[in-house]
Amino acid sequence: MNDLLRDRDAWSMENCSIARTLEMIGTRSAMLVLREAFFGAHRFDDFARRAGVAEPAVAARLKELTADGLLERVPYREPGQRTRYEYRLTARGRALLPVITALRDWGDAWAADPAGPPIEAVHRHCHAPVRARLVCDKGHDVTPDELTIQAGPGLIEARPK
Amino acid sequence: MNDLLRDRDAWSMENCSIARTLEMIGTRSAMLVLREAFFGAHRFDDFARRAGVAEPAVAARLKELTADGLLERVPYREPGQRTRYEYRLTARGRALLPVITALRDWGDAWAADPAGPPIEAVHRHCHAPVRARLVCDKGHDVTPDELTIQAGPGLIEARPK
Repeated sequence: MNDLLRDRDAWSMENCSIARTLEMIGTRSAMLVLREAFFGAHRFDDFARRAGVAEPAVAARLKELTADGLLERVPYREPGQRTRYEYRLTARGRALLPVITALRDWGDAWAADPAGPPIEAVHRHCHAPVRARLVCDKGHDVTPDELTIQAGPGLIEARPK
Repeated sequence: MNDLLRDRDAWSMENCSIARTLEMIGTRSAMLVLREAFFGAHRFDDFARRAGVAEPAVAARLKELTADGLLERVPYREPGQRTRYEYRLTARGRALLPVITALRDWGDAWAADPAGPPIEAVHRHCHAPVRARLVCDKGHDVTPDELTIQAGPGLIEARPK
């Protein structure tokens, strides 16, 4: 990385896309609730049983993730019961799969048990492992030292301190 | 996703790679400190000025990220001053770039200002934008509905409740 980074103090990250994303999913419990949504959980009891997060935190995260448009609440009714709601990933929520995958990749590589990771994600068609890889829009694999950071359309100059 | 997911309650995610990763970087402030490390910050004052995080949180995150081996402390000495320490990403820390990139991609697409994102990451050699894409090890792009979750070597059965 270089260019813009030569004078990092000249510009502000107050409208940073990373920070904005973290305002919605920047807690461990939000990510674990989302993990279970990707694994197919829809109902509160499933999230509470599977996410490894205390029930009040599950309830708070489901409410926040719904307010942020990552999950939607859908009514359902079991025979003889009142109407309840279940939660489904929206397109906005499903678009977080590379984030979840990148977290899993890193953990598999750098923090797994000696026994190995509990699950593997593979491509349905060829059965090869799936990862979140740094790729450019021309299809090249990109290493960290091949990244250049440049000004985007929304770059904000730093205010004098 | 299917297969293993048909009976999610039969297995445990107590050794989940996502959860293990989030134990180290599962706070907004840890991610923003790492963002600045990728942007070239080394010294406490740089992190404190740029990360948009309160100083005590910056100090706590630098300490934790160092303890977890994502940053390393390196001594330096300005003329006439006492020895101080700066922070550098380790290989373990640099391997988090796909996580940071996936968070940025999502924010750019789903949460940016109308003006657009503040920065762009491009491939130094071809200038095409770089993203964290879901790709299998045979080189296919993978959509979320083409993922199959299967048991890994460390899968743990759920304990009876």
